[in-house]
Amino acid sequence: MDTDISFAVLGTGGIGRRTLEVSQHKDGLTPVAACDRHGVAIDSDGLDVDELLAATEGNIDNEVDSDVATDGSGVAVKQHGEDRGVVASEQAHASDDSIQEIIDAGNEIDAVLLALPNYEHDFIPRVADRFVDGDYSGVLVDVLKRSRVIGMLDERAEAFEDAGVTFVCGAGATPGFLTGAAALAAQSFVEVHEVDIWWGVGLKSGYEDNRGTVREDIAHLEGYDIETARDLSDEEIEAIVDDHDGVIEFREMEHADDVLLERAGICDAADVSVGGLLDVRHDEKPTTTTVSVTGTTFDGERGTNTFQLDDATSMEANVNGPALGYLKTGVRCNRAGEYGVFGPAELIPGF
Amino acid sequence: MDTDISFAVLGTGGIGRRTLEVSQHKDGLTPVAACDRHGVAIDSDGLDVDELLAATEGNIDNEVDSDVATDGSGVAVKQHGEDRGVVASEQAHASDDSIQEIIDAGNEIDAVLLALPNYEHDFIPRVADRFVDGDYSGVLVDVLKRSRVIGMLDERAEAFEDAGVTFVCGAGATPGFLTGAAALAAQSFVEVHEVDIWWGVGLKSGYEDNRGTVREDIAHLEGYDIETARDLSDEEIEAIVDDHDGVIEFREMEHADDVLLERAGICDAADVSVGGLLDVRHDEKPTTTTVSVTGTTFDGERGTNTFQLDDATSMEANVNGPALGYLKTGVRCNRAGEYGVFGPAELIPGF
Repeated sequence: MDTDISFAVLGTGGIGRRTLEVSQHKDGLTPVAACDRHGVAIDSDGLDVDELLAATEGNIDNEVDSDVATDGSGVAVKQHGEDRGVVASEQAHASDDSIQEIIDAGNEIDAVLLALPNYEHDFIPRVADRFVDGDYSGVLVDVLKRSRVIGMLDERAEAFEDAGVTFVCGAGATPGFLTGAAALAAQSFVEVHEVDIWWGVGLKSGYEDNRGTVREDIAHLEGYDIETARDLSDEEIEAIVDDHDGVIEFREMEHADDVLLERAGICDAADVSVGGLLDVRHDEKPTTTTVSVTGTTFDGERGTNTFQLDDATSMEANVNGPALGYLKTGVRCNRAGEYGVFGPAELIPGF
Repeated sequence: MDTDISFAVLGTGGIGRRTLEVSQHKDGLTPVAACDRHGVAIDSDGLDVDELLAATEGNIDNEVDSDVATDGSGVAVKQHGEDRGVVASEQAHASDDSIQEIIDAGNEIDAVLLALPNYEHDFIPRVADRFVDGDYSGVLVDVLKRSRVIGMLDERAEAFEDAGVTFVCGAGATPGFLTGAAALAAQSFVEVHEVDIWWGVGLKSGYEDNRGTVREDIAHLEGYDIETARDLSDEEIEAIVDDHDGVIEFREMEHADDVLLERAGICDAADVSVGGLLDVRHDEKPTTTTVSVTGTTFDGERGTNTFQLDDATSMEANVNGPALGYLKTGVRCNRAGEYGVFGPAELIPGF
């Protein structure tokens, strides 16, 4: 069995760049393409990740461009220097439609990580449509965080199956890593009453790189939604952060873990709660990331199993490791002929 | 996709019986066969589990009969009453080769749980050989606890692939549930230094049903091995228990989690330690079952992620839920055409 995996990253913002970095630590993972909305780098022998990361490090803007059809990945690009975004890398070239170039090279790409923000709910699904339309038959992985998107992907399950696409959805930290942990923790029980996912993120040094993530999180605050958060200026986001003294508490986030666990038959979506504390002024986590699954065993005992991440593990580590892990497992499934939509509650990520 | 699963249980000792019981709580799982070395019950419409459990409840003996070729399952049978073991059920009949009868009915059985003890290292592998020889092409699941058996199964991987068999090995609590938790907890890290699996089992009320498990555990004590433990009389086992005041501590068990994690590329087998406390005089666990995975993140932080089972969850719940969960996932893989040997570090168990 071929165990080497070639993969592409759509989006060279924080998640995309770090995924390229983490892949350097993994056996058998070769990054062969990366793009943003200004350009694309493709090399089937493997990108020079160090050069690409060095060239694209720097200003990450939060400008949003969701016009997939004409514009490509629509995400964070480098703003300073002569060449914008990935084009700053000597391996890249400018492109009017960088996603299409990756689709066209799809035969040589086992898996594609969609490291794109999802300001419009159908953004990721529409990108997937483009891959299906372009006769891509590999793995697509996203790290989305919105419950309602899962249904849109499920509507496409048959199209994915026909195309030979294995779509692994919600494969970051949450949903993703912690959803998988909840699915596993449920195994003691015959009935699950409650899943509580509580995360802590300290983001001082990573703040610049993760503005898109912070913006997405703010969309979960009361009084905001995905549209109003998208329209916030950086100054307005700073003002929100100031209002909370740098530590924002989130409760009852619409965070996809709920539907992904329901989809796997583990509990009702309504029994899943997701929340956490984001501290953008310290790197230390303001609270310990914990998954608690409460259920009843076959012999009638009620209990709570827990999964805890060490405070020393960064949000970045907990997004990017699992994203690549789920990508690896997605490729195993795809090579075996398992097509359609899979959530993290159905797959153990590879290591 | 057909989501209903028919399954058979080889062995109607503690694990086999409870698996039948737990399956009653699960959607889409239909037990269609169960056997011990004296007889077999087969009904493709589904066994009457209540009747079978009631009929086979009672004395569980620890007699060991490892002559698979002539004798069938070789495990705990009911000793009292006119009919021994499963034959006490009105659904069962006596058989000289109950396993062969299940193999012969294999077309109607999606998955077979091998709830057999493994006093000889090649016992489970030899049972698997019989299924392959009998043209079975479904899922085989075991709950074995011996590192060296995994290699014997891996030697058969090609035979399984040719036959269309998906073998899920080590799918109980440990290895199994906790191995999967370790594999998941590793996802924060790019390098795993140490996996520590520490279990607590309180077995007062379950002692009679679990003598086979206790005997297998004793084989892990210093001064004993699988052969000497097999030859112990019940009185000798009681004496060992007395010597330890009812609470036996195990360290550095050869427990398969090590090779299963190495096999999944997570760490070296030598970096995995398995131990625990068994209290046969109380139902309360003498210690909290905890998986600790220590590693280094891509950004250079060292940390330890942990997974803890509530003390209220019994050993039985933590074996039988995962066994059926892995069985479900095995069937999904099998139906998709994924054949060969899979460990719990590669699969999220279904719910």
